[in-house]
Amino acid sequence: MRGAILHAPGDVRLEQRDDPTIIEPTDAVIRLAATCICGSDLWPYRGLEPLEQPILMGHEYVGIVEAVGADVRTLDVGDFVVGSFAISDNTCEICQAGYTGRCAHGSFVHGTIGTQSEYARIPLADGTLVATPGRPDDHLIPGLLAASDVLGTGWFAAVSAEVGPGKTVAVVGDGAVGLMGVLAAKQLGAERIIAMSRHPERQALARFYGATDIVEERGDDGVARVKEITNGLGAHSVIEAVGTQESMMQAIRSTRPGGHMGFVGVTHDTQLPGDELFFSQVHLVGGPASVRRFLPQLIDLICNGQIDPSHVFDLTLPLDQVAEGYRAMDERRAIKTLLTL
Amino acid sequence: MRGAILHAPGDVRLEQRDDPTIIEPTDAVIRLAATCICGSDLWPYRGLEPLEQPILMGHEYVGIVEAVGADVRTLDVGDFVVGSFAISDNTCEICQAGYTGRCAHGSFVHGTIGTQSEYARIPLADGTLVATPGRPDDHLIPGLLAASDVLGTGWFAAVSAEVGPGKTVAVVGDGAVGLMGVLAAKQLGAERIIAMSRHPERQALARFYGATDIVEERGDDGVARVKEITNGLGAHSVIEAVGTQESMMQAIRSTRPGGHMGFVGVTHDTQLPGDELFFSQVHLVGGPASVRRFLPQLIDLICNGQIDPSHVFDLTLPLDQVAEGYRAMDERRAIKTLLTL
Repeated sequence: MRGAILHAPGDVRLEQRDDPTIIEPTDAVIRLAATCICGSDLWPYRGLEPLEQPILMGHEYVGIVEAVGADVRTLDVGDFVVGSFAISDNTCEICQAGYTGRCAHGSFVHGTIGTQSEYARIPLADGTLVATPGRPDDHLIPGLLAASDVLGTGWFAAVSAEVGPGKTVAVVGDGAVGLMGVLAAKQLGAERIIAMSRHPERQALARFYGATDIVEERGDDGVARVKEITNGLGAHSVIEAVGTQESMMQAIRSTRPGGHMGFVGVTHDTQLPGDELFFSQVHLVGGPASVRRFLPQLIDLICNGQIDPSHVFDLTLPLDQVAEGYRAMDERRAIKTLLTL
Repeated sequence: MRGAILHAPGDVRLEQRDDPTIIEPTDAVIRLAATCICGSDLWPYRGLEPLEQPILMGHEYVGIVEAVGADVRTLDVGDFVVGSFAISDNTCEICQAGYTGRCAHGSFVHGTIGTQSEYARIPLADGTLVATPGRPDDHLIPGLLAASDVLGTGWFAAVSAEVGPGKTVAVVGDGAVGLMGVLAAKQLGAERIIAMSRHPERQALARFYGATDIVEERGDDGVARVKEITNGLGAHSVIEAVGTQESMMQAIRSTRPGGHMGFVGVTHDTQLPGDELFFSQVHLVGGPASVRRFLPQLIDLICNGQIDPSHVFDLTLPLDQVAEGYRAMDERRAIKTLLTL
């Protein structure tokens, strides 16, 4: 089969790889129906993460079960499944508490499995994959694919930030995850949703998904605008979806004392000053999203037509053109590239 | 009247100061019944906080109301009151959400009011002070004084760390606040309470207040011991009551993924690595404790004899000997010094 491999910064290639097979009795092998490129894939693509050897790219996926191991109980060959970028057993104490993104027996699809490919072996299949009710219509596939990471991650961030009715939410980051954070905030009943964005087309999409206010300023100026909108106090809930020092500080400073911040932008070289965190009294939690926890609910919402996250994909290419997909996102010509098979 | 003033590191003196009077209609003036020295007072005493000018020391207090301003509604002259180290109106949005330690109109007693003194003017008296039911017996006064900060702070840390039934709690720091964190964890129903301490007399007090396990190791070794005790996962809830880089990292690393950490040691020169916080998936919140929120409940528990926090005071001196009280704590001859008037 063919799969994407990153050899060096800027050098991603679709190459022949071994067809995956069942290794553990808890595995499933899936044939990809669609996959995509993540903002987090750009970190190694841009050389901002160390790359010691070529790595298998891609961690977002929907597909059809081709084979299951002897211990797989909830999935059958032929099922259409959505999976999380984090492998989880969904039975350990950590998963049962809701944190499937940090399963005690978990691992990550990125780098070692790589789902920008025709097939993939998914370990701990019962705990990682969720079957849709029947084979979904084609028009639902992009939305279901979004659930695999960006929607699930935005949703996790919103839940982590304790978004709810009556709350004012600020979203730092206008990439796909930030936009899905806006969608999640709207679904979770937020009263006011401030999208921090300076790109007109992303602002429009943020408004489409439920943003009530747009703040174009960044850093301290952005914080000052959020404070103006929130009676000087800051937002109740802040979603951070970038991962830089500036965006983290902007998010912390945009949160009111006692407020909650969910940070899901993969952080790189950030240092949070303890004294500021102390006096800010912001509740902070972040990390690899527990997508698996929300997948059943998200699949329902998508299949019932209640949400349509598919608009985060503004470029669709065949898997063959994966390299162009990376280039378009790197150059910010595209928010997110969907790859068809 | 006389009050303690810190002139330079190690140089605290009881001096004549002006008698406080009502300035704002929301003020009360109290006559101190007892006061004490806080671990956080040692930071400037040890020269670890910049001291640009002499400052008024003390922020823990119980006393009798001597005068009230025209707008004070809940207090009368003669009431015995317990107050928080944080001034709060208890009516703003932040206070109403429970975060009285960061009241939108708040300030701190430390440095400007100073309650290691005979009298004190307390601003926003209705929102800061709570009257006890009648005049408490003398033997209850040390416990009520503890509620003013160390008990309230330990309680806030435990609530912030989401301590509850069935949970395993680790407490980093065996000072008065850490010990009160142990007491709070016990009251809040924790199943297992790990006190991290290497001092036999503090270990004994931790056990008295409810610790089920003692870990003497610090740093990575201490983390490893907590993991051993918790099936490799880390504690559900961690209370941090020191405020150094080492203690903060020890606390974060002792918390399981998805677990909660409340940090109340006043942080000094700490930097928290964002990538570790990201992958740890620890819920983090800290800061000046919202003591006022818990005071009515804590006063009840103390007056009903359900808790006795007074054992954190292992040295009692008259206010005259405040300088010796600081020395004893600085040299770790005392956990906490109570000052009588």
